[in-house]
Amino acid sequence: MKKFMDENFLLNNETAISLFNNAAKDEPIIDFHNHLNPKEIYEDQCFDNIADVWLSGDHYKWRAMRANGIPERLVTGDGEPFDKFMAWADTVQNLIGNPLYHWTHMELQRYFGIDKPLNPETAKEIWDSCNEKLRTREYSVRNLLRMQKVSVLCTTDDPADDLMWHKKIKEDGFEIKVLPSFRPERAIGIEKADFADYMKKLAEASETEICDVTSLLEALDKRLSYFDEVGCRVSDHSLESCFYVKTSLEEVDGLFKAKLGGKQLTEEECGKFKGYMLTELAKKYHKRNMVMQLHIGALRSNSKRMFEKIGPDTGFDSLNDFDYAPQLSALLNEIDYTDEMPRTILYCLNPKDTEMLAAMAGNFNSNDEGIKGKVQLGAAWWFCDHKNGMERQIDSMADVSLISTSVGMLTDSRSFLSFPRHELYRRILCNKVGAWVENGEYPADNKYLEEMVRGICGRNAVKYFGF
Amino acid sequence: MKKFMDENFLLNNETAISLFNNAAKDEPIIDFHNHLNPKEIYEDQCFDNIADVWLSGDHYKWRAMRANGIPERLVTGDGEPFDKFMAWADTVQNLIGNPLYHWTHMELQRYFGIDKPLNPETAKEIWDSCNEKLRTREYSVRNLLRMQKVSVLCTTDDPADDLMWHKKIKEDGFEIKVLPSFRPERAIGIEKADFADYMKKLAEASETEICDVTSLLEALDKRLSYFDEVGCRVSDHSLESCFYVKTSLEEVDGLFKAKLGGKQLTEEECGKFKGYMLTELAKKYHKRNMVMQLHIGALRSNSKRMFEKIGPDTGFDSLNDFDYAPQLSALLNEIDYTDEMPRTILYCLNPKDTEMLAAMAGNFNSNDEGIKGKVQLGAAWWFCDHKNGMERQIDSMADVSLISTSVGMLTDSRSFLSFPRHELYRRILCNKVGAWVENGEYPADNKYLEEMVRGICGRNAVKYFGF
Amino acid sequence: MKKFMDENFLLNNETAISLFNNAAKDEPIIDFHNHLNPKEIYEDQCFDNIADVWLSGDHYKWRAMRANGIPERLVTGDGEPFDKFMAWADTVQNLIGNPLYHWTHMELQRYFGIDKPLNPETAKEIWDSCNEKLRTREYSVRNLLRMQKVSVLCTTDDPADDLMWHKKIKEDGFEIKVLPSFRPERAIGIEKADFADYMKKLAEASETEICDVTSLLEALDKRLSYFDEVGCRVSDHSLESCFYVKTSLEEVDGLFKAKLGGKQLTEEECGKFKGYMLTELAKKYHKRNMVMQLHIGALRSNSKRMFEKIGPDTGFDSLNDFDYAPQLSALLNEIDYTDEMPRTILYCLNPKDTEMLAAMAGNFNSNDEGIKGKVQLGAAWWFCDHKNGMERQIDSMADVSLISTSVGMLTDSRSFLSFPRHELYRRILCNKVGAWVENGEYPADNKYLEEMVRGICGRNAVKYFGF
Repeated sequence: MKKFMDENFLLNNETAISLFNNAAKDEPIIDFHNHLNPKEIYEDQCFDNIADVWLSGDHYKWRAMRANGIPERLVTGDGEPFDKFMAWADTVQNLIGNPLYHWTHMELQRYFGIDKPLNPETAKEIWDSCNEKLRTREYSVRNLLRMQKVSVLCTTDDPADDLMWHKKIKEDGFEIKVLPSFRPERAIGIEKADFADYMKKLAEASETEICDVTSLLEALDKRLSYFDEVGCRVSDHSLESCFYVKTSLEEVDGLFKAKLGGKQLTEEECGKFKGYMLTELAKKYHKRNMVMQLHIGALRSNSKRMFEKIGPDTGFDSLNDFDYAPQLSALLNEIDYTDEMPRTILYCLNPKDTEMLAAMAGNFNSNDEGIKGKVQLGAAWWFCDHKNGMERQIDSMADVSLISTSVGMLTDSRSFLSFPRHELYRRILCNKVGAWVENGEYPADNKYLEEMVRGICGRNAVKYFGF
Repeated sequence: MKKFMDENFLLNNETAISLFNNAAKDEPIIDFHNHLNPKEIYEDQCFDNIADVWLSGDHYKWRAMRANGIPERLVTGDGEPFDKFMAWADTVQNLIGNPLYHWTHMELQRYFGIDKPLNPETAKEIWDSCNEKLRTREYSVRNLLRMQKVSVLCTTDDPADDLMWHKKIKEDGFEIKVLPSFRPERAIGIEKADFADYMKKLAEASETEICDVTSLLEALDKRLSYFDEVGCRVSDHSLESCFYVKTSLEEVDGLFKAKLGGKQLTEEECGKFKGYMLTELAKKYHKRNMVMQLHIGALRSNSKRMFEKIGPDTGFDSLNDFDYAPQLSALLNEIDYTDEMPRTILYCLNPKDTEMLAAMAGNFNSNDEGIKGKVQLGAAWWFCDHKNGMERQIDSMADVSLISTSVGMLTDSRSFLSFPRHELYRRILCNKVGAWVENGEYPADNKYLEEMVRGICGRNAVKYFGF
Repeated sequence: MKKFMDENFLLNNETAISLFNNAAKDEPIIDFHNHLNPKEIYEDQCFDNIADVWLSGDHYKWRAMRANGIPERLVTGDGEPFDKFMAWADTVQNLIGNPLYHWTHMELQRYFGIDKPLNPETAKEIWDSCNEKLRTREYSVRNLLRMQKVSVLCTTDDPADDLMWHKKIKEDGFEIKVLPSFRPERAIGIEKADFADYMKKLAEASETEICDVTSLLEALDKRLSYFDEVGCRVSDHSLESCFYVKTSLEEVDGLFKAKLGGKQLTEEECGKFKGYMLTELAKKYHKRNMVMQLHIGALRSNSKRMFEKIGPDTGFDSLNDFDYAPQLSALLNEIDYTDEMPRTILYCLNPKDTEMLAAMAGNFNSNDEGIKGKVQLGAAWWFCDHKNGMERQIDSMADVSLISTSVGMLTDSRSFLSFPRHELYRRILCNKVGAWVENGEYPADNKYLEEMVRGICGRNAVKYFGF
């Protein structure tokens, strides 16, 4: 029996142990997609207690607590931080097999030096010990990032954002690159009630009068240039159900004006607008050598009752199951047809789509610039972000493409303590590679393998994104 | 090499062996969903021969025999029981990797003390040995249930059923709880030709004139109260393709009357009626603290030729592949919106939906009554009921929720010999938990783990259903 | 650690090793589906260099090279063979976990006696060594087939083909059976622009005036009889999106004439025509005891840019994700209803459909002719053709049917060097069977197991196809 989460955690063969220690462990973290708040990085404050860091914004944990029968008062309600923490400790004990179990304990180990399992008996001691540390400067936001050797991190930002905090962080001389990502969700979300309001906001931010699709694209182009100046290397889109229907500028112009005139568009009409915008934006990313990320398949705010009570992004989202190979193919083909395909990462939320996406990516890889894995399957996302999901992602990419070209892991997180997830991924990666080698499926060519592992752990991403 | 199906069958590590022996093995069986005939339990007769028990009604075996090239005469036809048994013995030998192989041998071992593999050479001896035993009182229906320590079992019953046999069994003082389940399939099956006939039957049983949807719901409510009195704790619905479309009472009332007036409804219209009925019934289950089961995704009677020859449920069903996350979300949301969500178990027949359902369940778990796993993924169902399927169910639930809250296994069977399937599940569960522990993924906290395993083996179900 | 791809490659237990060596290894190869060119077999020429054999037509390799960032000039362009080979060698090194890695090295080992891993350092030496051998008569096309003990191979042929090369090969006394397969893709492809042209070609080949669906079926029937005479035992169909809609002869006759009159048909209309043709052809296969293969789910020519540049089948296809259980059920039911179901093999390209197909097959197995696995799940196809995919195929068939009845592996390849893929499959099969036995899930009945393995390796196919 292996010891509980010791230094060889998830490393089940000698090759895996050697690869992890010699190649993976010390690579700096390139976290090219997360939802951290740059203001908090700039202000560099300390947290008051571990409930603050862990439980104030993490809908993964909230879902687990609800499944454990914890009343909402101790989940998102007005319960005392300590009571919430105790409810969480009880939940953790019941989380065998769940990634939250490993995240929690890796965070306790790596940040706080606590090796004990969290459960109702150990909870009080762990609460005290964490809080004592958290209140010291050593545990300020920036120091938490330094502790995990973060080298680059990309937040997720609206095109109308002034990126003030990113600029201040840079001016401040902070050695970790904190870069914005371009996420024009509201500019594309023509089905939303606040679309017209957002157009005004974007017009203001871009100093552009937005009266049609052409001027909307101009406005976005200006913002994209601005983001580029501030260091943005990557964009992000969330695609849900209908996201591409063949159309023309003339038609989407009509739809755009109809919407601003107060008309409710059909799902297909929205799909036309979105598909057109995605195509044009993709070409702008290509022009600037920026990476495009497509996150496909969320089904959000399923409980209207809870949405009305506590709003969006509170743990009531899950995964959709619509089929989208033809429309995704059509979208990518439209971008590719004029040879303006940017580097693109495809993420699915429903694991059934993993193999389809891995194969789809391969249709758009032909390029004369020597870009490896130009269009590729992204790391296991959200509900897929666990050991099984990561193994499936690695397998799927290896089965029909080149896992060696993968740009690897990202946290996608809102928490400053979530960086050990990179370590978790690296352990799983090394274990998988090690298992292939020890099973005689690949030669024990350590020099090559270490290089490959370093690539997947971060160096591929540095090249791919151009950090 | 491990011995063939010995006491450590499927238990591949020390922790698994210890968990199985100390926590799982002796837990009584709570079989909260099956298709046993209560009349046969009341009458407590013996079987004449093993072909009777095994081959007279088991469409799993029939499918395997057909795939093995056995002519229909020896499958469902007028062949002699012994000849059918010999055809089955030949088929069994060819069933490597199939759950029928393990079910068959666990049944031989546990009920008959026969350790030999069944094959054409051993078949005659096994036939004689089983039959000799079966004809003794020790092997009466009730004694078969006692042999496997069944504590509670829930049959599947029509709302119009008088539940006479359930009542007689109870009056008889039988120590095993034999409870009815409420399955209003025909009351919802508005697409069926015999819907109007069934309305008459239900009207009679409920002593209610059914002239519209409101009175239909009243009739069902009365029957539900009656079921409740007789000990019913659980309902069951089979959902196929279109099962929820947003509607109103007025609209479904019109559809109901149109159907009774002889009109053929469209699939969408049927979906409206079904969705409305499901919503209202769910609230009635909630009021009575009853559990709702949703079995989603069967595609039935695929061979019309064989249907005309030997009728439904004869081994010509398989699994559909339609996408249903949005409509399931909408149905559950409608129930949840007024905070009347009953405890709910979601089963999929197509394994591709497993992860979607596991995540979907988590959207509706928020409750202040301390119910653990209020909405949860059900055990691997029918075509998924095998080692791979069970492992996937456990994994999926653990990956995005709390496997520790699972209400565990059920047989879903028509056979009195099928209870060792609980043991099979428990072995797989203990093996999985043991593997996590031995791989350092969870502490070797035996006290907690044994408690958790006992919970999943039956104690969670006792609490959840309120047996 | 196991040695890199040694004699026990992928055989991880004693039973597996014994089964492979005693039962699998020496079985002749029955390759019942591939895309080899019979002309090349007849002419029996030698290849000039290894780039010729490996890189001139293999879109699997092209996709991998593109994903590795190799410019198109060295993929399908006018680069020098040696430069292409070097680009391939660099790609191979980066292919850990990909089946191409194992195919490449099995081909080097089995045909050329080269045990070294191919990488940029070893490439030149391997290039020289392979080429030297390739230019000798020992490495002529026929000798390559002999080296791998091929016994039967079935090419893929158009109904209008005169099968001249197949006949010449037979007349030549070549000891390996080279048989045609009937693939009436163009006769069914009513959506294609060249459909009318093809009708003329078919009319000529069949000496039948084709003026309606009845005469089209007559023409095909004649060609099928001709194929039958030349030894054809199997047909092949590629089904994409809509392939069955209930219709009548009258209706499809109208559609057929409309198409020949220049009308563009809708997708549904094409589905009606296809479904009708498939049904009628299936019955013709049944009459002749021929096997029907259905390959379902490709999404072809996704990059229009590359299609215009280098045409179809150049590595820009991938897998679709539409749901098709109901239409497949309806198609098979229509064929089955009159009891004219031929032996049928169902292949899916999207692995999510594997379990659905395995179960669907079981609905149409009832037969009084003793045919084992009459309708069955086919081997892992194309994007599924890798270790994970093969294991999933074996598992899925075992889980809900009888893997012992499987007709096993095929290459589906265009390359004369691809036959070691049978060995790869056999290793994976033996390893899986061995693992079941060593885990106590099946008795160590070597005699039966060896017989079963021999069956799956080729003897089942010989019976099933009637070679």
